[in-house]
Order: sequence, then structure tokens, then C-alpha cells
Amino acid sequence: MAKKLWGGRFTKATDPLVEEFTRSIQYDYKLAEYDLIGSLIHVEILRKAGYLTAPEKVKLEKGLKAIHASVKNGTFKPDCACEDIHTDIQNKLEAGVGDLVLKLHTARSRNEQVSFATKMYCKVELAKILDMLGEVDVVLCETAGKNCDLVIPGFTHMQHAQPVYLVDYILAYSEMLKRDYDRVWVAAGNIDLTMGAGALAGTPIGYEKYRVAISKYIGGLKGAGAIFKLKPTVNSLDSVSDRDFVIETLSVLSIMGMHMSRFAEDFIIWSSKEFGFVEIDDAFCTGSSLMPQKKNPDVLELIRGYTGRLYGNLVSVLTMMKGLPLTYNRDMQLDKEPLFSSMEIISTELRLIMGLIAGVKFNKAKIEEHLEDEALYATDLVYYLVSKGVPFKNAHTIIGKLIKYATDNSIEIKSMTERELGKFSGKFKKEDVIKLLNPKVSVRSKKSIKRG
Amino acid sequence: MAKKLWGGRFTKATDPLVEEFTRSIQYDYKLAEYDLIGSLIHVEILRKAGYLTAPEKVKLEKGLKAIHASVKNGTFKPDCACEDIHTDIQNKLEAGVGDLVLKLHTARSRNEQVSFATKMYCKVELAKILDMLGEVDVVLCETAGKNCDLVIPGFTHMQHAQPVYLVDYILAYSEMLKRDYDRVWVAAGNIDLTMGAGALAGTPIGYEKYRVAISKYIGGLKGAGAIFKLKPTVNSLDSVSDRDFVIETLSVLSIMGMHMSRFAEDFIIWSSKEFGFVEIDDAFCTGSSLMPQKKNPDVLELIRGYTGRLYGNLVSVLTMMKGLPLTYNRDMQLDKEPLFSSMEIISTELRLIMGLIAGVKFNKAKIEEHLEDEALYATDLVYYLVSKGVPFKNAHTIIGKLIKYATDNSIEIKSMTERELGKFSGKFKKEDVIKLLNPKVSVRSKKSIKRG
Amino acid sequence: MAKKLWGGRFTKATDPLVEEFTRSIQYDYKLAEYDLIGSLIHVEILRKAGYLTAPEKVKLEKGLKAIHASVKNGTFKPDCACEDIHTDIQNKLEAGVGDLVLKLHTARSRNEQVSFATKMYCKVELAKILDMLGEVDVVLCETAGKNCDLVIPGFTHMQHAQPVYLVDYILAYSEMLKRDYDRVWVAAGNIDLTMGAGALAGTPIGYEKYRVAISKYIGGLKGAGAIFKLKPTVNSLDSVSDRDFVIETLSVLSIMGMHMSRFAEDFIIWSSKEFGFVEIDDAFCTGSSLMPQKKNPDVLELIRGYTGRLYGNLVSVLTMMKGLPLTYNRDMQLDKEPLFSSMEIISTELRLIMGLIAGVKFNKAKIEEHLEDEALYATDLVYYLVSKGVPFKNAHTIIGKLIKYATDNSIEIKSMTERELGKFSGKFKKEDVIKLLNPKVSVRSKKSIKRG
Amino acid sequence: MAKKLWGGRFTKATDPLVEEFTRSIQYDYKLAEYDLIGSLIHVEILRKAGYLTAPEKVKLEKGLKAIHASVKNGTFKPDCACEDIHTDIQNKLEAGVGDLVLKLHTARSRNEQVSFATKMYCKVELAKILDMLGEVDVVLCETAGKNCDLVIPGFTHMQHAQPVYLVDYILAYSEMLKRDYDRVWVAAGNIDLTMGAGALAGTPIGYEKYRVAISKYIGGLKGAGAIFKLKPTVNSLDSVSDRDFVIETLSVLSIMGMHMSRFAEDFIIWSSKEFGFVEIDDAFCTGSSLMPQKKNPDVLELIRGYTGRLYGNLVSVLTMMKGLPLTYNRDMQLDKEPLFSSMEIISTELRLIMGLIAGVKFNKAKIEEHLEDEALYATDLVYYLVSKGVPFKNAHTIIGKLIKYATDNSIEIKSMTERELGKFSGKFKKEDVIKLLNPKVSVRSKKSIKRG
Repeated sequence: MAKKLWGGRFTKATDPLVEEFTRSIQYDYKLAEYDLIGSLIHVEILRKAGYLTAPEKVKLEKGLKAIHASVKNGTFKPDCACEDIHTDIQNKLEAGVGDLVLKLHTARSRNEQVSFATKMYCKVELAKILDMLGEVDVVLCETAGKNCDLVIPGFTHMQHAQPVYLVDYILAYSEMLKRDYDRVWVAAGNIDLTMGAGALAGTPIGYEKYRVAISKYIGGLKGAGAIFKLKPTVNSLDSVSDRDFVIETLSVLSIMGMHMSRFAEDFIIWSSKEFGFVEIDDAFCTGSSLMPQKKNPDVLELIRGYTGRLYGNLVSVLTMMKGLPLTYNRDMQLDKEPLFSSMEIISTELRLIMGLIAGVKFNKAKIEEHLEDEALYATDLVYYLVSKGVPFKNAHTIIGKLIKYATDNSIEIKSMTERELGKFSGKFKKEDVIKLLNPKVSVRSKKSIKRG
Repeated sequence: MAKKLWGGRFTKATDPLVEEFTRSIQYDYKLAEYDLIGSLIHVEILRKAGYLTAPEKVKLEKGLKAIHASVKNGTFKPDCACEDIHTDIQNKLEAGVGDLVLKLHTARSRNEQVSFATKMYCKVELAKILDMLGEVDVVLCETAGKNCDLVIPGFTHMQHAQPVYLVDYILAYSEMLKRDYDRVWVAAGNIDLTMGAGALAGTPIGYEKYRVAISKYIGGLKGAGAIFKLKPTVNSLDSVSDRDFVIETLSVLSIMGMHMSRFAEDFIIWSSKEFGFVEIDDAFCTGSSLMPQKKNPDVLELIRGYTGRLYGNLVSVLTMMKGLPLTYNRDMQLDKEPLFSSMEIISTELRLIMGLIAGVKFNKAKIEEHLEDEALYATDLVYYLVSKGVPFKNAHTIIGKLIKYATDNSIEIKSMTERELGKFSGKFKKEDVIKLLNPKVSVRSKKSIKRG
Repeated sequence: MAKKLWGGRFTKATDPLVEEFTRSIQYDYKLAEYDLIGSLIHVEILRKAGYLTAPEKVKLEKGLKAIHASVKNGTFKPDCACEDIHTDIQNKLEAGVGDLVLKLHTARSRNEQVSFATKMYCKVELAKILDMLGEVDVVLCETAGKNCDLVIPGFTHMQHAQPVYLVDYILAYSEMLKRDYDRVWVAAGNIDLTMGAGALAGTPIGYEKYRVAISKYIGGLKGAGAIFKLKPTVNSLDSVSDRDFVIETLSVLSIMGMHMSRFAEDFIIWSSKEFGFVEIDDAFCTGSSLMPQKKNPDVLELIRGYTGRLYGNLVSVLTMMKGLPLTYNRDMQLDKEPLFSSMEIISTELRLIMGLIAGVKFNKAKIEEHLEDEALYATDLVYYLVSKGVPFKNAHTIIGKLIKYATDNSIEIKSMTERELGKFSGKFKKEDVIKLLNPKVSVRSKKSIKRG
Repeated sequence: MAKKLWGGRFTKATDPLVEEFTRSIQYDYKLAEYDLIGSLIHVEILRKAGYLTAPEKVKLEKGLKAIHASVKNGTFKPDCACEDIHTDIQNKLEAGVGDLVLKLHTARSRNEQVSFATKMYCKVELAKILDMLGEVDVVLCETAGKNCDLVIPGFTHMQHAQPVYLVDYILAYSEMLKRDYDRVWVAAGNIDLTMGAGALAGTPIGYEKYRVAISKYIGGLKGAGAIFKLKPTVNSLDSVSDRDFVIETLSVLSIMGMHMSRFAEDFIIWSSKEFGFVEIDDAFCTGSSLMPQKKNPDVLELIRGYTGRLYGNLVSVLTMMKGLPLTYNRDMQLDKEPLFSSMEIISTELRLIMGLIAGVKFNKAKIEEHLEDEALYATDLVYYLVSKGVPFKNAHTIIGKLIKYATDNSIEIKSMTERELGKFSGKFKKEDVIKLLNPKVSVRSKKSIKRG
């Protein structure tokens, strides 16, 4: 059994199953780096407030930096017998600095230590996601650029609606990701890195006087650096009770996952034999051990499926926080696994989507075949009649009947004579009709969009 | 059966059960006002783009304003046989302006019409919630102010931790609401009121040229007026497919509801016979038909319980949007009931909480009784020993044993002699110990909080 | 303000907003019938236990039956100023029987009254769903029967896998509904209709002695009649605290809705222009006000979309019950709206699906076109080589390469010469290969299925 | 990179990030035992159907049993470079039996292999949970038995309602667990262990002819053995598409977790200083590193908090399955982590609760103090007046006023003179009133409960 710091009033050892149940090191080892940064900052403050001598500060910093270096170079090994990563780090530090480690407890509670490290993890990971969102957008725009003349059937209700530029389809996802970017940016900025709450009631140190720069501990994150700033707690009870930042993050990631599930659904359907709009690169597909012809869009399917996990993680933490009295309750330890899970899912998905989109091939021949469906031009025909003075509603009815007639009799409108067309409306000129049954003409007639 | 506009290619009537299943007027009548504003704006644009003559514009505006007035003065009666509020309004308008109504369909789709009205509803309701959040905060601050010297036992794990100012407990909720305010503000601002998407492919009108002020239709909303601005669509496919604003709103309201559930839980427990910290005003309680002594905190219980509804509404729309291909699908009609439900729950709860908090009585006598628990001062005793040079960990162990001794033997620390105290540590001075076993002394010794 | 029964210790009127917030008659009026049955049973028991005289019993029964008749014939009008349906019915009864109504309160609490009525509602509605599930299954089997020779491409990962009988596709849904049937049956049977709990502590009446038949109040429900039986409470605290039956029902309905969402997804995709496997009857589609060609599968889309509502309702009640202390808490009133909502969604969907399936047309010509994809027969070709002694893995690789060759060079395997085939394996006989590239041959070679 | 079986038509290696994203061995190694049992059964069937010679069967069985033994004795080491546990086991088997391993693929798909193993895992774990539920019930009944005379205040709305036996409080949880037991039993029984589905279209083997006993592979599970039976698939498309058993299990476990969260909530509140009804054993509590007096009910808090995880897991799989077309889609791989997570949470919680309940101490002195609240007897006083001929409603009002009078004036009803009592009703006899203000008298007056 690993050491504990709180045994004074206990007469009985903790039940071993309880130790296992309450242990968190198997997942919170991911917070090691941020716990160490938190401790380095705390050391600075303790020195400023007079709780440490200059040599003590130097010694503690040296010890903490050595462990930090081991985390960064991958040699850090969590001791899974410890209750949590914070205890583990403390034990490792004790091995280096001896009893001096105990001074680190001054004016500090584990609740706050956990909260600080989790918030810092969250900010850093969100900053990485911001960078990736930017990269995905570049790939989307490149793909759009490479296919800038391609027109495809546009769908509503999964039915042929009107022709649209493929570019606009692709940039619709770009719009979603831009909103995601804004939400992530706000969520990351909303996270206040505070100290001074103690267990719930504050501590004797006046943090306001002692500013410490956190940003020096952050490197290589574009743009996001500015949002790392230490603040004194404004309300210590709230500081140890608050998990809004976890829920807000999980919510933002859920929406992002939903967007990716829609992208996945479109591309899964588009890569079906029947649609055949796209071909996904071999590197992003897998086969079947039984059916040799299979090339399955597994990556897209898993992206769609992980939406469930993202939503579940959100529900998990929302439920956990429901009806909890103030201030800290142990339930709140259960915020971390869902948070880590959603962060990792989204990070991986963003990296996968970059490669996948870059490698998609659009099957122009097949798409053109589908564009021959004359129903796609029905709305253009309506506007044609309207421009000839037919009231909108009447025009709508005329074209509806024309389409039905053509479908029922398996004939093409473009092969109908002007006389045949005349049975539906005297306004039709065959040459105009033929001109309108054309994808390029259709998409060029729309003027309302202010492309971003 | 009410009229439909899309019958041309259909040879069979819609099944009556299908009509019932697809109908939305029983809830979307709430959008009447915003549908009318959307139409008034559309009329302005159609005129500017040359699709309406000046007299036609005047006639349509007159018709629309008459209906708008009936909504505002409460005389508007939805016709529940209609498919939705948009059809209903169109029929009512037709009764006034005749066939001219059909011109309103030019360059416009119902998908976009629905989206515009829902977004405007959302912005307006969020603006109202902003105002209410401000008012609740005033009540919280007043209540804090009235009890500025009151100290209560602070809890972690629902166990006595350290004494804290009641003010800080109350202002912890204020902190939560401030974060809620910021989130609502961002969510409201994120909603773009766009036109020009058509069904999915845009329309022939160049919206960018024709600016229309929406803000003139908004009155009486503090601060939020500036965020009402019409924009041309940047991506028409995205515009008709997007429901981020619904999910973001539901998510923000879920977090707010979670905060209120914690407040409710605290006050339910505090109003139990055993705690007795507070008494809820009669006006916010109900009784029992069987047990005459009962005075139940029903309002708080329902606030706690509605958290489930708020989460459920969020899950409902998240699930609905999962894996939907672009662009519009009929599934998306199902965003409205959850949205309306969560908005109404939160609005009502905020109004209730104002009155409830204003009427709460704090039972000082009972609270003081609970403050006599000497365990609340254990941490202060640790710091005392630390200040006398005892290492933190040793001090923690000493006080742990002292507390256990006192509890097991049912004696008070303050009644122990210096000699008895000396068995635990030679550093204790009885007069110091007695001074420390005091709530005011305890709370005053914390310096770390920068009160907001 | 409507009358209340619990005013004795209150000195202040309930806040009007509180009345609105706590009121439930706007939805619990649906329980009217079951509340009345509960009261009729209670009257029987009060008489047996000596709390009512024979004439009092007759008078109360007459009054209750009159109201019951008004519910059944649709003339019952809930008074929306009442707190709930139970108060409303009591007021209406008082109008008929005067002060005698007050005797009905003997040994009874509203908590139990609500619970009884909700349970009875639940049992009755589940029994109706059982009947409907049976009817849907009949339609599925009929549709399967009418298409018993039709083979279609089978899909995994939305990619062509192997040919399968359409019958098996349709009966896969039948299997799902059978599991749903079993679950509904168990859920309905699990609901115990109990009396005797009082507010939480029991009542002075020995219910065990007084058996009352509930089944006499149930008519026209096939099979389910037997499950209606009154039981004395086994644990009064549990009886007033339990909402398992609501959650179990919502969970069962969620799974059923998930099944229907899969059916909907398949048929939406199958009715796309690109697939064209099916045509949905006009009566189950709607059109577009803008695009005259549109025939949208709205019913299927809404069925898919309502899955979100079903899940949300489940989450709503699960969350509401989380962490509630025993026994009754007012939060539990919020079980009803989600319950009613899910019941109504599922009932309507089952009725819709019957008609929709009955009217679906399978487009044999288009399906046969898709069956020409030779990749569908790859696994059969593997088994062919295996039967010729080629190890499975090698056969798999050979066929994989053959398919790739044919695809890359746009040639059909069936048009390849034996010599060309021989480049992949010397075992191929052209006539055998041609025979195997046939849907009927493929489906007939499977022997493992024990059709239900 | 580990070997794959499906490379034939692929010209490009899988992207390494895709390998990581699609890999499942890091969690599905838990299925090793059941995958091996599935293979042993498959070998039996392949022999019966003539696909294996007798020596081949022996050799394969020997190889499989050796690996099975390594799983059972804990020496099995999953190779984390493999895609999944099924590939890993196949590789390990190949090391023993060489190319013969490839015969195991005959008439079998990985989809079905995964489904079989997951179902068997599920059945076995549910059977263990059944055993544990039985044990928890024994502990509950013992605890009830040891405290069979103890009366405590009963609560509704967290307010004093009426006195109840502690036994009944404890047995209310027993009732919940009984319903859980029934649900687990049904869920376990609903899981059909089938073979013969192939990838989706069946296989050439007639499984119906070849019965194989699975129960021989199951040992040490009380009662549940009988439910392990192999069945031929009834519908192969359904067999590979179905995850009902996962959702049903997650739903049953969610309800069980909800019950435990209520238990946790009650005991957390009861162990607060203010209530003081119970003391949790040191072995089930932890302390604080800062506050030496703390003894926190962490186990109960985590049980309450894990409810969120259980719900989240359910939502995760429900969402994942929503709208999936038939048949198998890769999304479905994501059922396992939520399933394993919920199973482990519930198993651990059941074991913890046994110990925790067995060690709880009820603080009779403190409970008796709370029973002095005369409001608890208000309903008994109402019944007293009713028995004296006062109409129920009047009696309710009289007692309501009496309670209010006593509270407002801080006097006890039992110390009031008959004259004072007479101001409220002439029916009161002081000696009767005093007799009624007694917990035992109160609980003994209830006759309605048929204790289970």
C-alpha cells in the first residue's frame, strides 16, 4: 500500500477494494506535466510569501524540474499503487528532496491541485485542437480549389433537389468547423487558472500581490499562449466546486463530433456502389477476412460511431454534477475519464480527416451521369415560367405535372417537342428548355451567396 | 384539410395520420411573430430587387402588420388544421391580400423561413434570459449584503470542513451565474440571421447589396439590440442544414440548470429539520393532503428535477442531428419542442429563484449551534502548530488524534486543560486554542480570495 | 385560484408563478380514466374495511361512474385552474356528492394515487403497443411473402457484400420487433398495481384481506387482460419512491425507436434516385413549396428524427431520479411528460409503419441492375476455389486480385476467357464462373439459417 | 505491423493512424476466453459438417485449449500490435498449428465471431451480477434483522413525514434490488448465442443439425448455467446487425446504478454531522490531506457519481446505433468499451456495498433525538380526530393549526394542557395525545403492508 497523508484520526486501514475504487492514477497520470507546473508556480508563490527560504525554493524547483524533464522525455513511469498522480509525484519528489516536500502542502489542497492541473490540460489540448482545425480548413479549401468547376446533385431529404457546386458542399463543412473554432476559442479562454482556494475556505496567502507568469511553461502553441495567466480565486467555494469548463469542453466537442458524423455519413453514402461519387483512398479503408472484394470506409464509420461516445461523455459529466451540494464532492473526480476520452477522439479524428479528404477522388463521370436527372432542373423551369409572367403557384403546378408525365412515360423532357411541351404551357420554347436542363446554367443563376 | 402548395406531381392525398404526424403548428405557433418579421424583411428585399412594385409592397406590408398586431395584442388564433405556422400565416395573409400572397414565395424556401424564425426566437429569448440573470444576481448580492457577517459551517463531501462566510456561499452561485451570463451572451451573438439560401442552392437575388435593419423590430431588450442584424448567407447548403444554434443554446441552458439544481439541493438540505439553516417562505412551498405539518420545498425540488428535462432536451437534438447527411432533412423539424421547453423551464426558474431567495430566512441560532462543532477548526489548529515550527505533516497527525480523542470521549477541546492538550503537543497554549475555536477568527485568517 | 386541501399551517398564499410551475393538469389530464378506476377500487376497499356505509358506497360509485362515462365519451373537460387531474376530479365529484367526497381521502395519499394511475396508464398503453406490434409483424410477413423470390444486394459498411433474399432483409426487422414484443410484455408484466402505501408509512387498512379485481375495468385489450391485478404494497416506502416502471418503459421504447430509425434509414437511402430500390407511396410523402419535382420521405425522416426524442425522454427521467433520497420527492412529478411523449411517438410510428410498408413498391428492374455488380459474388468464387482444394487464404487473395483487375480495366469477369481467368488461378472453369455470377445461385447456396 | 487477412485488392498500406484508430485489442482482450470457446465450438461443428478431419480437429482443439489455459491462469499476454483479440489469438494459434489455422475461417466471419464472444461475455458477467445481487440482499436482510425495532423519522421531500421502521427503509432498497435481479435475469436470458450468420448472408453449413453444448464451458455460476445454449441463426442479417443485448444490459445496469445512487445519497446525508443517523466504517472512508478531522464517505460519493458514467455509456451505444442501415457497420465495434465499463462499475459497487452496509453503525441516541419532533405524529393526530367523528378535512386543518401554534411559540404539544388543546378541538384527551406522540405507537398502527 502506498503512503497516505491523512491517517491521523483513522483506526482502521482502508478496504483494499476501496483503494482500487477510489484510485485514479490509471488515468490521471496524463496530468503529470500540469501538476508539476502547478507545483513550480506554487513554489514561486510560497517563496514570495515567505514560507520558503531561497535555498529551499532552489532545491524544490530542481526536484520538480527533474521530474518534469522525465515526463517530457517519456521516461516518467507512474506508480500505479499510488492513489493518484499527485501522490505519485510527491513521493518521487520526496525521494529527491526529503522532508522538504512536506512544505509544499502549505496553503494548498488537493482539490485545488487537481482542478488547476485539469484546467491546464484542458487549455493546452484545446489550443492543439485550434491548430488542427486550422489545418483541416486548409485541406478543405485546397480540395474545394482543385474541384472548383465540379457540379454535383444537391440533396434535401436525400432526394435530388438542385445542382450545386461541389465547392459549396465542401465549404459547408468548412463553415461548421469555423463555428467549432470559435466555440473552442471561447471555451479555452473561459478557463481561469486560479490559486488560493485551499480546501474551500481560502488560505492565509494574499495571491493577488504575487503575480506569476504561466505562459513561460507553455511552448509551441500558436496563438493560444496569451490565454495562460494565473489569477487569484475570486470565490474559493466556487473554485473547488466548479466543473463548468469540463462540461463546456465536452459540449463543444460533441457539436464538433456531430459535424464530423454528418461529413462521414455523406462520404459513406457517396462511396457506395450506387452513388459512386467518391473513392476513398486505400490507406483509409479496410477489407474483409471473408469477402475479398470489400473496401470498407471504416474510418468514416468509426467517426460517425464515436459521436455516441462524445455525447455519452457529455451526459456522464452533466449527470454527475446534477444536484451536487457545494462545495467539493468526491463524485467530481469522475470528470477526467470522459474529458480525456473526448479530447483524444476529436484530436485523432481531426488528424484522420485531413489525410482522408486530401486523398478522396471525385468520380466525375459517375456524377455527370446522375446530373442527367432532369428533375434537378425543375425549380429552374419554374423560374423560367415565372419570368414569362406565369404566377409562381401555377408554374409550380405545371412543372410538377410535366415531371410526373416524363417519369411515368420514361421520356426525357429535352427530347420532347415544343408541341408536347405546349400541352403543359404555351410559354415553353424548346431551345430555352434545353438550355435550362444544364448543371452549369443552373448553378450560375444563383446570386444570393456571399462566399466567405 | 388545409391547403398545400406542393401537390403538382402527387396523385394521392396524404394519409390523415401522416398529416397529423408531420404537423407542427401545435408548437411552432410560438414563432408567429418572428415569421412575420422575416416576411416583412423579405418584402423589403423583394421590392429592392425589383420583384414587387411599390403598391404591392405597401399592400403586403399592411397585411403582414395587421397579423403582427394581432400576435402582439393576443388576438391571433392559430388554425390547428394547418401544417405549420408559416402556412397558417400565409392563409391569413391571403384572406387580406388575395393572390398577391403568392409573390412572397419568390426566392424563398420554407426551410430558410423556419430557420430564420427559430433563430430570431432564440436570440430574443436569450436576450430576456440575460436580463433575468442580471436581476437574479442583484437579489443574490442583496441577500449576501443583508447577511454579511453570518458565518456558517462550510462543507466538502457533505461533512463539516471549515467555517465560511454565508456571503461566500451565496456569491459562489453568483459566480456560476456570471459564467452562465457570458455563455448566453456568446450563444446569442453566435446566431447569424441570414437570408438568401433558398431551398439549398441560393436564389437569384443579390442579398449583399440590400441591407435591411432587423433591430427596428426589436424593442425593450436591454443591451441585446445590437446583435440583431441581417446577413446574406455565406454558404446556402450550410444555412439550411445548421442547427448548431439550437444545440449550443440547449447546452448553455443545461449548464445553467445544473447550477440551479445544486442551489436547490443545498437549500433543500438546509431546510430539513436536521439542518434547519434556512426557512423557505410559505409562498414557495406546498403542503400535503394527508400530513398537516408538511411544508415542502416543492419549487426547489422541481428545479432540481427539471435538470433532467434540460439534459434530455439537449440529448434529443444532439441525437437527432447525428449522422444526418447534408442538406436539410425533415428530422430537423424536431428541434423546436426541446428548444421551447428548455427556454421556458429556465425562464420560469430564474423568475422563481428571485422571489425564493429574496424570501429565505436564515436561522442564525441553529447555525450557531452547528458552528460549535470543534472539528471545523481543525485546520486552523494545524496552521497554529505549523506557525510554532511543527512540520505540516506532523501537525496534521497531532490534530487528527486530538479530534479523535475528543470525539471518542465526548469532551470538548476548549474544556481540556493545557496539560491534557500537552499530551498531544507541547506547543499548545490553552488561551490560543480557545481563541482559535471561533468562527470569526477562522474566516478572518484567510487572505487569498480576491472578492469579485 | 382552485381549492387546495393542505392550507392549515400556511399563513401566506402560494405565489401565482409557483402555482403555474407546480401545476400538472395540462398533461396529467391523460390519467383521468385511471384515477377514476383507482378511486372506484378504493371505494370498494373502504366499504369492505368498514369506513363507508353501503349507501355511501353507492353514492360515491355513482358519482365516479358518471365522471368516468364523461371521460369515455369525450365530454370530460379538465379545469386547467386545478393543480392536477386528481384535484379536478375530486372537485367534480364534490359537485355531485357533496362533503361525502372527503371520506375518499381516508387511508390514501396523493403520491400513491398518482403512482397507481400512472402505472395503470402505462400497462394499458403497453398492451396496445403489443397489439400493434403484432399487426406490424403481419404486414412485414405479407410484404415478405409477396416478394419471396426477390434477391437484392446485401450490404455491410454500406458496401455491396453478398446477394440476399429481400425476404430476409424484411424479416430482420421482424426479428427486431419480436424482441421488442418480448421486452414490452415483460415491462408491462413488471408493473405492480399496488395500494396501501399511504404517504410513505402505510395505512390502517389491511389490504391483503380485501381482494379487488381490476381486470373488470379493462376491456378490448387482447392478451394483456390477465396482467391487471391489485396487490397490497410489500414496502410502502418503496411504493411511493419507485419510478422503475417509467424508466423501463422508456428504455424499451428507445430500443424500439432505434430499430425503426434503422428501418427508416434503409428505406430513405433505398428511395434515393441513386439507389432506386423502392418507391414510397404518395400518401406517405410530402412535396416542396419551391421544387415541384420533390417527393420526400418525410414520414421516414421524422421516424428517424424522433429517436432523439425517445432517447432524450429516457435521459430526462434517468437524470431526474439520480441521487434522489427516499422516499417521495416532488421531482418525481416530472416523469409523466416524457412517458406520455414516448408512448405517443411509438404508437403513432407503429401505425404509420403498417401503412407505409404495405404501400412500398420494390423496383425490380433497378435492383436487378445493381445485382450485376460482380463483386457481390466474390465470396462465392472464394468458396469455389476452396472446394477445388485451394486454401482459404490463398483463394481470398486470388479473388481479391481478380476483382481489382476487372474493376481497374472496366471489364466483366463473365466476359473473360478461361485463359484470362487462368492468369489468376488454373482452377477456374469459365462455365462454373458464369454459373456462380448469379444472385439466385448465390442465395441458394446458404444452408445455415433456421428461418423463424 | 501485424498481419492482416484482407489485403488482396489493396495497393496501398493502411495509414498508421488508421491502424491505431481502428484497433480494438486494448479493450477487447477481455473477450479472449469467449473467443476461444467460440472457436472450440466452431471446430466441433466444422468436424461434424465434414470440413475437418478427426486429426485436424484434435490438433486445433489442442492448440485452442492451450491458449485457453493461458487465459485462465493469467499468463496470456495480448499482442497490442494486433488489430483485435481475434487476430491475436489466430496468430498465437498459428504458431502452434501452422497453416491449419486457416481452416478455421471456413464458414465464419469476424462480425459473427465478435458478436458471439461479446454475447457470451455479457451472459457470464450478468450471471455473476445475479450472484452478487443475492449476496447484497442477504446483507440487507441481516442489517434489517439486527435493527428490527429501530424506528426512524421517515422523509418525503426531505422533510419529516411519519415515523417508520428502519427495517422498512432498508428493505425498500431490497425491493429495488429484487426488481434489478429480475431484469438482469431476463436480460441474460434474452441473449441468444447463435452461429451460422456468416458475414451477413449465412454459410453453407446446416447448423440446425449439429447441436453443441456450450454449458460445458461454463463453471461455477450458480443458477445461470442453464441459459447457455447454442442456437442456429434465425436471420443472418439480424444476427450481425443486432446490439440490443448491449443496450438492454446497459439500461438494466443504469437503473441498478440509479438505485445505488439513491442509497448513497441517503447514507451521505445520514452521515452528515447534522443528521448523524449513521457512522460509516473507517475502511470505507478517506481523509483529507489538509483537514485532519475529515472522514469522508468517498465510496458513497463515487457510487453516486458513477451513475453519470452508467447513463453516459447507455447514451453512447443508443446514439451509435441510431439510424444505422443494415447490416453490420464498423460503428458497432464501439459497443464494447461502454459495455465493459458499466459491467465493471456495477460489479465493483455491489461488492463495496456489501461491506459498507455490513459495517454501518446506526446512532440510536441521535435518531431518538430527532424522533422528538412532534410534527412526525401529525397524521396520527388527524386519524385520532377522525376516529372521534371529525371529518378528515376538518381534522387536517385543526392539526395544521396546532402544529403551527406549537412551532411559533416553541412549545411542545405534549406539555400543553387539555384546556389549551381544547382551543383547537374539544375532542382531544391529553392522555390520548401523549400516547400518540410516540414512534412505536405510530408505526404499529399501520396495517396495510404485506411485508415481502
